[in-house]
Formats: sequence, structure tokens, C-alpha cells
Amino acid sequence: MSRPLKIVFIGAGNVATHLAPAFERAGIGYVSQVWSRSLESARSLAGRLVSAEATDSTRLIIPDADLYVVSLVDQAVPQLIDALPHNGALWVHTSGSLPMEILAPLTRRYGVFYPLQTFSREVDVDMSRVPLFIEGADETVTDTLRAMAEKLSDTVHYADSELRARMHIAAVWACNFTNYMFTVADDLLRRDGLDLSVLYPLLEETLRKALQGDPASGQTGPAVRGDSSIVARHAATLPPALAELYLSLSRAIRDRHSK
Amino acid sequence: MSRPLKIVFIGAGNVATHLAPAFERAGIGYVSQVWSRSLESARSLAGRLVSAEATDSTRLIIPDADLYVVSLVDQAVPQLIDALPHNGALWVHTSGSLPMEILAPLTRRYGVFYPLQTFSREVDVDMSRVPLFIEGADETVTDTLRAMAEKLSDTVHYADSELRARMHIAAVWACNFTNYMFTVADDLLRRDGLDLSVLYPLLEETLRKALQGDPASGQTGPAVRGDSSIVARHAATLPPALAELYLSLSRAIRDRHSK
Repeated sequence: MSRPLKIVFIGAGNVATHLAPAFERAGIGYVSQVWSRSLESARSLAGRLVSAEATDSTRLIIPDADLYVVSLVDQAVPQLIDALPHNGALWVHTSGSLPMEILAPLTRRYGVFYPLQTFSREVDVDMSRVPLFIEGADETVTDTLRAMAEKLSDTVHYADSELRARMHIAAVWACNFTNYMFTVADDLLRRDGLDLSVLYPLLEETLRKALQGDPASGQTGPAVRGDSSIVARHAATLPPALAELYLSLSRAIRDRHSK
Repeated sequence: MSRPLKIVFIGAGNVATHLAPAFERAGIGYVSQVWSRSLESARSLAGRLVSAEATDSTRLIIPDADLYVVSLVDQAVPQLIDALPHNGALWVHTSGSLPMEILAPLTRRYGVFYPLQTFSREVDVDMSRVPLFIEGADETVTDTLRAMAEKLSDTVHYADSELRARMHIAAVWACNFTNYMFTVADDLLRRDGLDLSVLYPLLEETLRKALQGDPASGQTGPAVRGDSSIVARHAATLPPALAELYLSLSRAIRDRHSK
């Protein structure tokens, strides 16, 4: 990690767009090339970097870089592998779901460099606050990835495929399902000419409390109070499918808190 | 609304603690007295006000104030009503669940002044961002309450008991159920020595996206993608009760988005 690495990014999507400039800012190295199936995307990311060239041809991928970062949608990786240069360089992918071994055909020095965040191209992210999960094919690779990750983020964890999968499940609960709860609330409020915005201050406060303490001890509402008459009254006013879900969730809350 | 009102607060809980000083700061009037069942609580709130006295005796409640604000837990209101001074003043309660008419024995000028926020005693709240829902026994009362509310908040809506109840249901989905989603994620992560904090950046981004656009169009995850193999694999690793809920929620998301 003494000299700056020569880096190639395979992919120019949301993750790559945030990770590549962050690698340069952290002094990990310089991105020499960005490959993307779309030359326009490759050029757009290259334009944000110190001196990177853009290409959409796998045959033109520089074979002698130190580090290759594969940052593509999961399905795209297996079908691309054979077209990538096979060498002794360090190869990582940035996926939470793919096994590390998918890179084994390319090198013996492979690993995973997984940022646990959802990135939007247009929104800046403070990478130092993004948890990074790393896994290396051997201890030397793991150590190298850890050192790199610690230059970027304050939170670095080792995670094998199983732990990444379990974190993914937790993220589905905390983020995907939460977003669905917001959707239901928004749908309900729109019937009255209102929308989710009327709950913003309440939502922010809910999030603040959950992030400050632990969410279990901050649970409020009729279910945790055991106020079954309100729960029944609420369910009675909802369409059948939502009513059933409302009752299931209320039961789950009651069960969780009567432990 | 020309001269400052003489105000009495009945109750010194979280809502009263934020509302009473806000009334004074907004120039609505001055709180002359705070009643609470606990003299200590009454004194604590009175100490935050310009020149309010504290009492725990209903017989000592000032009978000639202009405005009485009843801010108590719902169950406490019916049993207290008879002990309160019956006069021609303006009386409001701050509850989302109680009907306005519960105040009818006290005055003909009654109404509701309901802030849609969860308050913590120690955390300052910017009242201008808290949506206020008002309802008056007649148009004159409603107009008076609207004028007061608009001095406090940028968001003022008229809401009768039915609309307040529907907003409460929406808030259960958006806040109580969301907090339960956080709890499940936290419980799962703790098995691996992690906790919800590892998802903070992801949570903040999820909330930011939901608040910026509409949550439905920001839905991500295996359920909305129709990735049933991931959904089944996730469910298989969860304890039975959570697995069932995971599948119900995934189905609900798929149904909502196949509309």
C-alpha cells in the first residue's frame, strides 16, 4: 500500500461512480481506465476522475493494473468473467450477494469490497460513514483490502458470503419493508387529499429515536400498549389485505414485547 | 386574537411541555397557570414559562382564563372533566383520538388542537414544522383555532374525529410498524455481534428518498424485483414466525407494485 495503485473499474454504475473518486481522494491510487458496456457511462465516470480513459471494449481493458474493481449488477458478472484479462492482479467485486469465488478464474488474489449503502448518482455520500465489508481469498488479500477500506471508511468489517447474506436480510427488513410501510401510509393519506409529507416530522423523530437508543425500547403505538380495541378498530377500516397485514404486524409487535 | 390570551394548561406532559412555551413565543398569550396531578411536573413546566404558577389542585384552577389547553393521556380526560371549571372560555384538547365533544360539558366554545408529532421532554422541536390539526365546535371557534395554529406552524389542517383517526392509522404504519422493522433488523444483526447502527447510512438514505419522492416509486429489494428465489432463500433462514411475516410483506409489496 506504499505506492499509489493503478486501478481499473469494470462498471460505471452508482456504486462505481461513488467508489472510484473516493479511492482517488483517499490516496489509494489512480483510476487509469473505466470500462462500461455503455461508452457514455464510462466517459461520464472517467470525467470525474484525475486521468482515467473510458472504454466499452473488454479487449482494450488494461492488463497490467494493480487493482480491478468489478462493480456491475449481479447478473452481469458471470457472463463477463471470461472476457476479462486473466492476470495476477488484485480483483474485487462490490456485490453483497455474489460469492467471492466468482472472481477465481481471473486471479488467485481475489476478494470482496462491499459498501453497505444505496447510492444515487446525483447525491454525494460521505464514504467515511459507509460501512465497508471485506473478504479476501487469503489472509494477505484480506489484510490488503482491510488497509484500503480503512482509508475510506470509519467502519470496516470482515464478512463472508453467509454474513453478507444475513446482512442483506436485515437490510430488507430495515429498508425495503420500511419503505413499504411508508407506501401504505402514503396510499391511505392520499385518500384524504394528504400524503406522507404530513408525517415527516413524526418520521424523522421515529428514526432519530431508533438510531439513538435501540428500536425495541422505543416502540410505541396501540400494539405494544396491548390496546386491542384500537387495533381491532383500525383493522376494521382497512381493505381486507391490509387489515390482515395490520393484524399480523400488531401480533408480531405484541409477541416481540411480551418476551 | 388582538390582545394576548390568558392561558391555563391542564397537564404538564410531553405535549404540554412543548406547546406551552411555543404559545408564549408565538405571542398567542401568556400561560398563567399549569395544573398537573403531579405538583413537581406542574412546577417543572411553569419554570419554563414567563410567569406561570403551578398547582395540583383542580379547585385552584383559575376560572377566568381565555384559553384552557387540556393535554393529558386520553384515559385521564373523562374522569377529570367534572372537576374542571365550567365557563364560557375557549377549551381545547390536544389528543388525536378523543372526540372534540368530550369538552362540551365545560363550555360551548370547544375544539381540538392536535400536533401530529411525538415529543420527548428533552428534545427541542421546531414547532413551525409540526403539522397542527384543528377542529372547532362552530365556525367561529374553528377560525380562532386556525389563526392560533397558523402563528405556530407552517402546516395547519382542519380534521374532524374521523380524519384524525385515519391519520392515526397512517402514523401506525409509517412510524410504529417501521420501528418494528428496525427492531427485527436489530435483533437479527445482534446474532452476528452487529446491530442496527451498521445500517444507519442505508436507513438515512431510505428515509431521504421516501421523503423526497414518493415511497412507492422508490421501492427496492427482492420482493418488488419479483426475485422469488431470494425471497424464499431469505425466509428459509428466519425463525418460523418471522419467516411467515417476511413472506406476507414480500407478497404485499409484489401485489402493491403489480397494480
